[in-house]
Amino acid sequence: MLVKLLSYHLSADPGPRFGMLDQDSTGVIDLGSRTSFRSLGNLVEAGGIHSVRDLQTASADYLIEDVVFDRLLTRPGKIFCIGVNYGGRSAEYDDATDKSYPSVFVRFAESFTGHGQPLIRPPESDQLDYEGEIVVIIGKPGRRIDPADARSHIAGVSLGNEGTIRDWVRHAKFNVTQGKNWRHSGSMGPWLVPIEEIPPFEDLTIETRVNGQVRQHDSPSTMKYPIEYLIHYLSTFCTLEPGDVIFTGTPTGAGARMNPPVWLCPGDIVEVEVPEIGILRNGVADE
Amino acid sequence: MLVKLLSYHLSADPGPRFGMLDQDSTGVIDLGSRTSFRSLGNLVEAGGIHSVRDLQTASADYLIEDVVFDRLLTRPGKIFCIGVNYGGRSAEYDDATDKSYPSVFVRFAESFTGHGQPLIRPPESDQLDYEGEIVVIIGKPGRRIDPADARSHIAGVSLGNEGTIRDWVRHAKFNVTQGKNWRHSGSMGPWLVPIEEIPPFEDLTIETRVNGQVRQHDSPSTMKYPIEYLIHYLSTFCTLEPGDVIFTGTPTGAGARMNPPVWLCPGDIVEVEVPEIGILRNGVADE
Repeated sequence: MLVKLLSYHLSADPGPRFGMLDQDSTGVIDLGSRTSFRSLGNLVEAGGIHSVRDLQTASADYLIEDVVFDRLLTRPGKIFCIGVNYGGRSAEYDDATDKSYPSVFVRFAESFTGHGQPLIRPPESDQLDYEGEIVVIIGKPGRRIDPADARSHIAGVSLGNEGTIRDWVRHAKFNVTQGKNWRHSGSMGPWLVPIEEIPPFEDLTIETRVNGQVRQHDSPSTMKYPIEYLIHYLSTFCTLEPGDVIFTGTPTGAGARMNPPVWLCPGDIVEVEVPEIGILRNGVADE
Repeated sequence: MLVKLLSYHLSADPGPRFGMLDQDSTGVIDLGSRTSFRSLGNLVEAGGIHSVRDLQTASADYLIEDVVFDRLLTRPGKIFCIGVNYGGRSAEYDDATDKSYPSVFVRFAESFTGHGQPLIRPPESDQLDYEGEIVVIIGKPGRRIDPADARSHIAGVSLGNEGTIRDWVRHAKFNVTQGKNWRHSGSMGPWLVPIEEIPPFEDLTIETRVNGQVRQHDSPSTMKYPIEYLIHYLSTFCTLEPGDVIFTGTPTGAGARMNPPVWLCPGDIVEVEVPEIGILRNGVADE
């Protein structure tokens, strides 16, 4: 059974907990009470994922429907996000004259909520948009990492909705920071799957649905900048550390690209799915 | 006497310390051994600046030349940086038709070193450039802060060299992240001066010198987006928290704007000065 590690709390107790799903994926096994780790982030940073694997056979402490999912990592390290990245590889792959590089921006932890929590539409804008993404969490530090070694620096993989306030992305000529950092405009989860259990990224598919309607569907095989290259590129200028996070880019099909654009509204349900990982599901609410 | 709070270590002991300059500004009074605060960041986050003020009359533990200055905050919160900001106000101030907003990007702590440490030129580029800036450190949390209240959310002010690897800024059409986050390409310090001791920002001047030659000289009075407005704007989309940092933009005169461009080289000395704060001085070294 796939190991699925999560951060959560109980509705009756806001204190942060972390755990793993049981073998049926119907219950949550608390890990804070069974290990010396203090959080999922601490577990990742300490390289402890292997040490908790056997606890998956324990009996669950809570039913999954009785826990509230928190943002995957309560206190993540650096959060890098990659701009448009899918659908480009077939045209430009192996084009030695292409000197372009990934578009890289940063989000802060506060901009993400957890699985099952509403994405927040602020009073300043009605242009809340989704971006389904594969998210990698770094497990081993490195600088100038060779793409061939990149996978060994990943602790695990999760899903992200890189929710965006679209009109604020265009507030300045360069830099999308202010459209990408609205409180709880995006989400991250529901759980982390250890990298050892994930097939080669090119074999995955990712799909984003709004109210059941498919809006994005693609595969990392079309990424202009494959995940291993992103790890190499980012680590050229800074040290990637355990607990750092990379949102690896979104396929075409965001609401902004529809004609006319379609924005998320309260009551909408957004799902991001990679079958080998799971489904990240969020509603939408006005602040 | 101006209160000047700093992070430092001893050359014989890499352990992080923090303290304040004595009344002559010739010695360092250690605060870790005299208070219950653990770091300068902890002192700021706990709102403890006023509580240490009287310790300035203590006798110094170290001569200033015997300590190594660390990055002002060892573990800062969010670090926001503002793009071109000076020299624009006279033309555009009070133009109600101007719908532009600040350019906002993010740096991670690792991209900054401390006062007196060399800025690092990496083997990947020879385009290391300086950007002298006034830096504000948030002391009180807030969301949607009124510009009239903005100053009360500032704990203190410092200086920054927002050092940049210029060709990597242009790697992508949007977002300058990768040119702004090279390890130890910038610096932050030398100390924090409490906001109560700083005149209105419009009355300050800022100057950047390379090997004694003036390259940037301007006043926040020409800022297109005054510091109080920046605090308002950033807090619209996220909560500004104690320990968060804003690099408030640089005047014209970076090396990239010279004809031909002039980059920093090993042996150069860069100084950023605001007389009411101090001088941030850094050499340059190859990695």
